[in-house]
Amino acid sequence: MPIKVIAFDADDTLWVNEPYFRNTEEKFYNLFNEYLPAHEIERELMRIEIGNLPLYGYGIKGFVLSMMETALQITGNHVNAEAVNKILDLGKEMLNEPIELLEGVEEVLQALHPHYRLVVATKGDLLDQERKLKKSGLAHYFHHIEIMSEKDETSYLKLIRHLDIQPDELLMIGNSLKSDIIPVLNVGGHAIHVPYHITWVHEQVEKQVEHDHFKSVTHIKEALPYLIS
Amino acid sequence: MPIKVIAFDADDTLWVNEPYFRNTEEKFYNLFNEYLPAHEIERELMRIEIGNLPLYGYGIKGFVLSMMETALQITGNHVNAEAVNKILDLGKEMLNEPIELLEGVEEVLQALHPHYRLVVATKGDLLDQERKLKKSGLAHYFHHIEIMSEKDETSYLKLIRHLDIQPDELLMIGNSLKSDIIPVLNVGGHAIHVPYHITWVHEQVEKQVEHDHFKSVTHIKEALPYLIS
Repeated sequence: MPIKVIAFDADDTLWVNEPYFRNTEEKFYNLFNEYLPAHEIERELMRIEIGNLPLYGYGIKGFVLSMMETALQITGNHVNAEAVNKILDLGKEMLNEPIELLEGVEEVLQALHPHYRLVVATKGDLLDQERKLKKSGLAHYFHHIEIMSEKDETSYLKLIRHLDIQPDELLMIGNSLKSDIIPVLNVGGHAIHVPYHITWVHEQVEKQVEHDHFKSVTHIKEALPYLIS
Repeated sequence: MPIKVIAFDADDTLWVNEPYFRNTEEKFYNLFNEYLPAHEIERELMRIEIGNLPLYGYGIKGFVLSMMETALQITGNHVNAEAVNKILDLGKEMLNEPIELLEGVEEVLQALHPHYRLVVATKGDLLDQERKLKKSGLAHYFHHIEIMSEKDETSYLKLIRHLDIQPDELLMIGNSLKSDIIPVLNVGGHAIHVPYHITWVHEQVEKQVEHDHFKSVTHIKEALPYLIS
């Protein structure tokens, strides 16, 4: 069946995101460099974040709570008020980051908008993603924004049902093979992978994807020839 | 036009919620009772929570971050690691609270399910609300769950557009006049108010509502005669 809906991942597909997390992490490691070297704090933060994912989900607020927990852990419960304050501030700074669109994104949305229903399909906090979409100036291209608590096969089936389409009428464009590509292909949809130069460890997969419904491009603009004849 | 979609608020409409916040707040006040009496901590927490709403939105994670900020504030930056730990634990406890359905809810959903498309329309964190819906055993009654970053007129118009219906084809059932009733009536929808015995101060309105599209009932079961003939 012809594709009806094109869903775009948001962070690191439409706009820059992961570098802000990396930047915040660096500042966090520096706060505690008298306790542990950066790479050990990194490991501990990662462990705590992933442990908290089922409870906190994705997004900045959960990340801040995990930094707080990591701070307690690595200081052996000696974290002081100043550090707590700084961690809260790091979170607020992240929530206030400007939006930096990735190159070519607007051109692609402009070209696709007359031909498809476009949606944003993303993890994270609704309010934060809505704010980013608004700041991005791209909101008018999209029918709506779908926040998914997890990007697995069950969630994509729910999304497809919710969009009132058949699985092969959906095409997903995103930077994460694990979250945006593989589960979509597994439920019968189409997917185009546009890698970003940084990927969170938790999102990394070793897999090579080969599938009739799959394309990989190095730049989002290269997706257009497949979608508009 | 006849009603097509019935949207239910979740917290304190389908299940108990506000008492868990109250309970956590009490525990929080007790952590710092050497610094300030409970009612002063309460005022400070409220002020900080409301100040953070535009940034954090609704939900438990933002509430925990606001408790953390309040702790710094009321101790004059003398909060210790033990208190930080306890605040994180309070948040995790809340996220793990059991679901206590309000009386009559399941009976109402059962009766309405064959006749209407039912959705949940709620503020808060997606993951948390999904988890509650799953734990509640009510998920199969609902077409899907809508998380709204704010329950104002703009958001209800977006919801209506998203549901592909006309404003007067929507009926909202909820416990908050401010969030569930007034904005829905203002955009042309229908609403049934089912008050809950506790309302968060931020949700309280002084207003009396009178409107053709409006009913108030003391128990959710009393909504049925208006909806099924």
